[in-house]
Amino acid sequence: MRAYDLIDKKKNGKSLNKEEIDFLINGFVSGEVADYQMAAWAMAVCFQGMSMEEIGNLTVSMAKSGEIIDLSAIEGCKVDKHSTGGVGDKTTLVIGPIVASQGVKVAKMSGRGLGHTGGTLDKLEAIPGVRTTLSDREFIEIVNTVGICVAGQTKNLVPADQKLYALRDVTATVDNIPLIASSIMSKKLASGSDAILLDVKTGSGAFMKTREDAKELAEIMVEIGRKAGKKMAALVTDMDVPLGLTIGNALEVREAIDTLMGRGPEDFTDVCLELAANMLFLAEKGSTDQCMRLAKEAVSSGKALDTFARMVKAQGGDEAVVREPSLLPGACYTMKVKAPKAGYVEHMDTQGCGLAAVLLGAGRDKKEDQVQADAGIVLRRKTGDRVEKGETLAVLHTSCEERLQAAHDRLLACYRIGPVCPPVGPHILEYIS
Amino acid sequence: MRAYDLIDKKKNGKSLNKEEIDFLINGFVSGEVADYQMAAWAMAVCFQGMSMEEIGNLTVSMAKSGEIIDLSAIEGCKVDKHSTGGVGDKTTLVIGPIVASQGVKVAKMSGRGLGHTGGTLDKLEAIPGVRTTLSDREFIEIVNTVGICVAGQTKNLVPADQKLYALRDVTATVDNIPLIASSIMSKKLASGSDAILLDVKTGSGAFMKTREDAKELAEIMVEIGRKAGKKMAALVTDMDVPLGLTIGNALEVREAIDTLMGRGPEDFTDVCLELAANMLFLAEKGSTDQCMRLAKEAVSSGKALDTFARMVKAQGGDEAVVREPSLLPGACYTMKVKAPKAGYVEHMDTQGCGLAAVLLGAGRDKKEDQVQADAGIVLRRKTGDRVEKGETLAVLHTSCEERLQAAHDRLLACYRIGPVCPPVGPHILEYIS
Repeated sequence: MRAYDLIDKKKNGKSLNKEEIDFLINGFVSGEVADYQMAAWAMAVCFQGMSMEEIGNLTVSMAKSGEIIDLSAIEGCKVDKHSTGGVGDKTTLVIGPIVASQGVKVAKMSGRGLGHTGGTLDKLEAIPGVRTTLSDREFIEIVNTVGICVAGQTKNLVPADQKLYALRDVTATVDNIPLIASSIMSKKLASGSDAILLDVKTGSGAFMKTREDAKELAEIMVEIGRKAGKKMAALVTDMDVPLGLTIGNALEVREAIDTLMGRGPEDFTDVCLELAANMLFLAEKGSTDQCMRLAKEAVSSGKALDTFARMVKAQGGDEAVVREPSLLPGACYTMKVKAPKAGYVEHMDTQGCGLAAVLLGAGRDKKEDQVQADAGIVLRRKTGDRVEKGETLAVLHTSCEERLQAAHDRLLACYRIGPVCPPVGPHILEYIS
Repeated sequence: MRAYDLIDKKKNGKSLNKEEIDFLINGFVSGEVADYQMAAWAMAVCFQGMSMEEIGNLTVSMAKSGEIIDLSAIEGCKVDKHSTGGVGDKTTLVIGPIVASQGVKVAKMSGRGLGHTGGTLDKLEAIPGVRTTLSDREFIEIVNTVGICVAGQTKNLVPADQKLYALRDVTATVDNIPLIASSIMSKKLASGSDAILLDVKTGSGAFMKTREDAKELAEIMVEIGRKAGKKMAALVTDMDVPLGLTIGNALEVREAIDTLMGRGPEDFTDVCLELAANMLFLAEKGSTDQCMRLAKEAVSSGKALDTFARMVKAQGGDEAVVREPSLLPGACYTMKVKAPKAGYVEHMDTQGCGLAAVLLGAGRDKKEDQVQADAGIVLRRKTGDRVEKGETLAVLHTSCEERLQAAHDRLLACYRIGPVCPPVGPHILEYIS
C-alpha cells in the first residue's frame, strides 16, 4: 500500500476502506506517511467528502492511536457531554453537578479556551486551589466518591488527532464537517464513557455558522458514536447570542453558581436543564418528562450545588467560594460600554464578543498564552433588548487597565442597534437521537 | 501575507495575484512556506484550477527562482523544442540537425528517461564517448561552431520547479494541466531560447491521454510563452502508437541516423519533417511551404547527417558511428515476440511497450537507476498492420538474458489482435500558433 495511491483515490472521489484508513493514520503517527501527504489528502477530503463508513473508520483509527481511558473501575453508567464551543458556554459547571447529584457518573475530560471560545478548565481554575491535572487514580476516585470530576486530557490521548489537527490548522483544511466530526468523536471514544450527549452550537459565535451545517455535524457524530457502541444523542443549540450574561472565567463561575442556586439567566438555565435532562435520559433515569423533573429537582433541592461544592473540594479548591462567590478573583478595573443611540439590539457578533473578552485577558490568541481569571465581560443588554442612548450595554472587567479601550471598541462594534425588535428564537434548535 | 490565507483563497476558487504567487514560490524555495502547505495548495489547484494570468505568474516566478541561461553569446535566432514525452520519441536527434544545418541555432537542454518515456540524453550517450555534461562555455562554443548542442540541465535551473515537482510526485498532484504547463514552461523560459516549438503528445503512450487535454495544455503553454516574450508554436502529435519502429537508446540512435539518411520509417519521418519545418518557420526562414522544402533538402543533401556527425564529435563522441552504425553497442540476447493468432493489430498499449523496454534495461523505474544502451525493442508490426499466427510482432534486445521472459509477456499483453482493421489517423493532430 502506498500513501500516493490513497491520496489519488480520494482525489478521484472514491472511498478508502478500513485497511487504507488505518495505513494512513498509523503511518502518519509513526512518520512513515509524510505530513505533506496528509495535507494533500485532507485537502482532497475538503473537496470530495467522506462516506459515513469512511468517517467512522477514520474516527476509530484515530481513537486507537493512543491510550483509551479505562473507566471500568467506576460503577454505573458514565455519561459524557461535549460542546463544540461558544461564548459564555459554562454549561458543564452546571449540568455536570445536576446529573451527578441524581446518581449518574460524570467522568469529564475538558479543554482550554482558544480564540473566541472559552474552555471549562480555565473557568474551573478561576476557583482558588482547584487542580485539573490529575492522575488516573485520583480522577477515578473522585468520580466514584463525588459522582463527578472535571480534568484535563491525558497527554497521550489520540495523538493522531493532535497531529492531524495541528496540520489542518496551517493548511486551511479545518472547516470540513467529516474531519471535524472525526476529530471530536475520536477524543470522545478514547475518553471511555458509555453514553455521550453532544451540544452542537450554531450561529455567529459558533464554528458552525448555519443551522444546516450544525445539524449535519450532529447527525454524523451521533452515527459515529452509535456504530462504536456508545449511547448517543445531540442537541443543536443557539450560539448567535452569548449564552447567559457573562463571558470570562471567574465571572462565568459566579453565573454557574447562581444558576445552580436557581437564579441564573433564563436562556442559560433553559439550555442547562435541557442538556441535563437529556444526559439523565441517556443514563436511563426515566422518560424525558421524568428526567426534566429530576434535573429541576436537583437544582431546587440544592443537591446539585452541594455536588459542585464537593467536587471543588475534592479537586483541591476552596469550596467556600460556592457559598461566598466574592472569594472569587475580582478585577481591578472596569469600564462601561454605552449605547451610542436608542433602539433595539438587532444583532450581536458573538464571535467578536468572545474576541473582546480575549483582549481583556480572559482567553488566548495562542495555546501558550496565559489567561487572567478575573478578566471578562458582564452583558446588560443582548439581542432583542430595548436600549436607550447612553444606557450601559455591558461592563468590562480586567486587571490590565491599558486593555480596556481596545476591548471597549471591539465590543461596541459587535452590537447592531436599530429600530426593529428582532425575533428571538428558541435556545434549542434540533434534537437528534 | 500568510501561506494559510493563500491556500484558503485558492480552496475557495479565487485567483492569486502576482505578489501572492511570488510569496508562495519564493517562500517554498527558502523554506518559509512549508511543503505541507504547498501540497495543500497544489491539491486545491487540482480542484479549482488557475486563471491564465495565475498560470503565467506562477511560471515566471518559478523561472526566476534560479539561474536563467544567457545565450546572448550565440548569434542569430535560437530555437528550442520540447516534447512532453512518449515511447520511441527520438525526434530531437533528427530535427535538431535538420534545423541547425539550415542555419538556425539549437541550444538544447534535454532530459533523461523516467518510467515509460525515454530521454534524449540517454539516447545520445549510447554513442561511445558522447558527453552531455558540459560547461556553459563548452555548450555555447559548440552551438556557435556546429549550430547545435544537446546537453543536460544545469543544476541550479528552476529550483522551485524541481522542488515542487518532487512534492507533486508524492502527493498525487501531477496530472493537473495548469501545473504541468507551468512546470514545463518555467524550464523553457529559463533555457534562454528566442523561439520555442512544443510537441505535445497524446494517446496511450503519452501523459495526455486525450486529444482535448493535449490541445488545452498546448494552448496554455503557447500563451504563457508568448506573454513572456517568446515566439511560440505547438503541434499535438500522435502517441497512441510508438513513434518509429524502435524503443531503446542505441536502437533509436540507429533509427535516427537512418532517418537522417532519408530511409526512416514513414510515421517518424513525417513527424520529424513537420516539427523541423515549424522550427524553421519560427526562425523566419520563409513560408511554411518553403520551410518544409528546406527541411526535406537538409535530409536529401546529407547536410543534416553531416551536422549530426559534427555535433557528436564536438561532444566527444565517435563520429564514425554515423557512417557505421554497427559501432553502436549491440545486445547479447534477443527474443522474438510472436503473434498468438492471425488478424489485425487493433490497438497497442504504448505506455506498456515503454515499460516492457524498461524491463529489458532501456529505461528507469527510479531516477537513480542506470540504463543499458543496448537494450530495447524493434517493432515489426504496429497498429493497423495485418499479422498471421506465429509471425514476429517484435524483437527484444538485452544483455541480461533473465529479463527476456518478463519483457516478452509484458509486450505481448500490449498488442490487441482482432478481426477489424482499425483506422490509422494522421500523425499530426493539431497546429497551435
